[in-house]
Amino acid sequence: MNQLSREHKTGSPAAPARPATIRWVGELDGWVELLDQTVLPEEVLVERCQTAEAIWAAIRALKVRGAPAIGIAAAMGLVLAVRDAKNPGQLQEALQKGHAYLASARPTAVNLRWALDRMLRVAERTGGTDVRSTLETLLAEAQAIRAEDAAMCRAIGEAGWQLVPEGGAVLTHCNAGGLATAEYGTALAVFYSAQAHGRRFEVFVDETRPLLQGARLTAWELTQAGLPATVICDSAAAQVIRAKQVRLIVTGADRIAANGDVANKIGTFGLALVAKALGVPFYVAAPSSTFDLATPSGAEIPIEERSRDEIAGFGGKNTVPRGVNCLNLAFDVTPADLVRGIVTERGIIEPVTAPRIRDFFRDSACNGLERR
Amino acid sequence: MNQLSREHKTGSPAAPARPATIRWVGELDGWVELLDQTVLPEEVLVERCQTAEAIWAAIRALKVRGAPAIGIAAAMGLVLAVRDAKNPGQLQEALQKGHAYLASARPTAVNLRWALDRMLRVAERTGGTDVRSTLETLLAEAQAIRAEDAAMCRAIGEAGWQLVPEGGAVLTHCNAGGLATAEYGTALAVFYSAQAHGRRFEVFVDETRPLLQGARLTAWELTQAGLPATVICDSAAAQVIRAKQVRLIVTGADRIAANGDVANKIGTFGLALVAKALGVPFYVAAPSSTFDLATPSGAEIPIEERSRDEIAGFGGKNTVPRGVNCLNLAFDVTPADLVRGIVTERGIIEPVTAPRIRDFFRDSACNGLERR
Repeated sequence: MNQLSREHKTGSPAAPARPATIRWVGELDGWVELLDQTVLPEEVLVERCQTAEAIWAAIRALKVRGAPAIGIAAAMGLVLAVRDAKNPGQLQEALQKGHAYLASARPTAVNLRWALDRMLRVAERTGGTDVRSTLETLLAEAQAIRAEDAAMCRAIGEAGWQLVPEGGAVLTHCNAGGLATAEYGTALAVFYSAQAHGRRFEVFVDETRPLLQGARLTAWELTQAGLPATVICDSAAAQVIRAKQVRLIVTGADRIAANGDVANKIGTFGLALVAKALGVPFYVAAPSSTFDLATPSGAEIPIEERSRDEIAGFGGKNTVPRGVNCLNLAFDVTPADLVRGIVTERGIIEPVTAPRIRDFFRDSACNGLERR
Repeated sequence: MNQLSREHKTGSPAAPARPATIRWVGELDGWVELLDQTVLPEEVLVERCQTAEAIWAAIRALKVRGAPAIGIAAAMGLVLAVRDAKNPGQLQEALQKGHAYLASARPTAVNLRWALDRMLRVAERTGGTDVRSTLETLLAEAQAIRAEDAAMCRAIGEAGWQLVPEGGAVLTHCNAGGLATAEYGTALAVFYSAQAHGRRFEVFVDETRPLLQGARLTAWELTQAGLPATVICDSAAAQVIRAKQVRLIVTGADRIAANGDVANKIGTFGLALVAKALGVPFYVAAPSSTFDLATPSGAEIPIEERSRDEIAGFGGKNTVPRGVNCLNLAFDVTPADLVRGIVTERGIIEPVTAPRIRDFFRDSACNGLERR
């Protein structure tokens, strides 16, 4: 049993019963195992990757998705790319080539490049003269990236679990869960921690059109963890909140501006408006690395438009008449004043205002925040 | 050219370029043509029904849908059921059997029974001694039901078209269009009339999960009518309203309580909350027959729960893990205070309050409202 598996046993909450999102198996001659998210929930398929090419293809095909999980995959992929190096020269060359290659799998993913850069810096620090020792260090670093992410998610869960009402209903949107991270996720970490602390509650899950991450991934991982989940259509949230007395909403975030405006999966803004109108606290759970203090407000966050095809068809069937336009906004921006609080690995920022966020980061300036 | 076709030419707006939702072709020895809505938008298939059995099957299979359209289909189906009667005794028997048979196609559809009852009353009034004359009268009545519906929809459009902002964007949810009625629809009649009056505008259409009536039907009929439509995911409405300056939202209604609370397709309530928060006027368009004055408020309107399958799969593919619960609420209730106004065939009720609604019906008590 490796270090990470042991760590699960002592951590809280317990490791999920499902296969790990991504993990390294064995020593330097081992391999990467990842859960193929493209075939969930129909199939639970663990893919074994023995080469950097296999990792590249898995990232490209979205078999592994979510910023933290992609970063971990890339770091482990770099170990696979260089582990056959016989001398310092070969190692250097393999590191440079592997970095460029893996970074090309999804060019816009910030965490991908961040993780690969971190691996290169570690290799430089070791000097690179003892190839075996450098390789061991690189593997340890890749595993550290994974362990740090898992620890950060657990810390988010610990910071936020008391928000979950005993015997109540909660709601989430998209997948800010363990499938997007090393283990526990961000929004879902709050629920997993509450479960570990004995809270009983029901989770309503927006199916999250167009790609149905809520229905396919969140509902699956909650069920695997023994949390009762109920999938609803996104547009049903208002009626369900009112009819089922939902008392807490938690989502993840893709990017948080300096004033607390939150960019997240399309539908988050509408959900936050509904929550405000119905008096339900709306929280965002995200590591502090999600804050982009160089972006003053949500107005400066560009909204990605994705392919018409994601809306216009499903399962090979056409659902929108040919020639009719679709507008497929991938994200929206929720103004800070709709967000009751932001649950981070170092506590909850509440209320969500620019000064509070500034203070939060000033108080913890030496706390490793710049690493991501 | 029959009477209805001529009527199209003089009415405003013009008849849609697409095949009619449902119509009678020829004289008493003619047939019913209906547009098969189950294969839209992939195929535009006009089905010819020569028997009551064919009509029954079309209603049952949702080839024709929407309360007014179902009522028209049933009335025309009753003509088909009885037209071969040779004497008054046969006619009486065929009328009774046909009524019971057609009413069983969708037992909960109020308009279905309403239209069939109306046909029976007409037959009684003729005395039934001259079979040929009674049959002619029945056919005329079925065509009158269709013509009245078309006229009512046109009147709704005329009452509401000036709400549509010149050069602006509007938004609708589900299909409250010509495909659910004889011709123009309710919410969409407002847009069609605005178009006929020369207004230029863009229509955003919620796809309307789970059954995608917005994507499949509304986008199709708007495009057929030459109105530029853009399909969005339901959850994107808030972001689209903000980003695209949507300045009017109009939906239909399934039932309106005495205090103005509106039951309509799931998602309407959330959309109305979003509209209120973003300052966009939210209107409901519905014939006055949609008001149920015996129901004091929305709290007394039961919300139908439909099958899990509508959410859990699509195109033969499973989208929700087996064993995971889905809550499929077919309707929601929008409180009157979120509705800026209700566009009826006799003008706009605004503001939407119990006294205003009471006055509206008192002022027009003899106006045929009790017929439906």
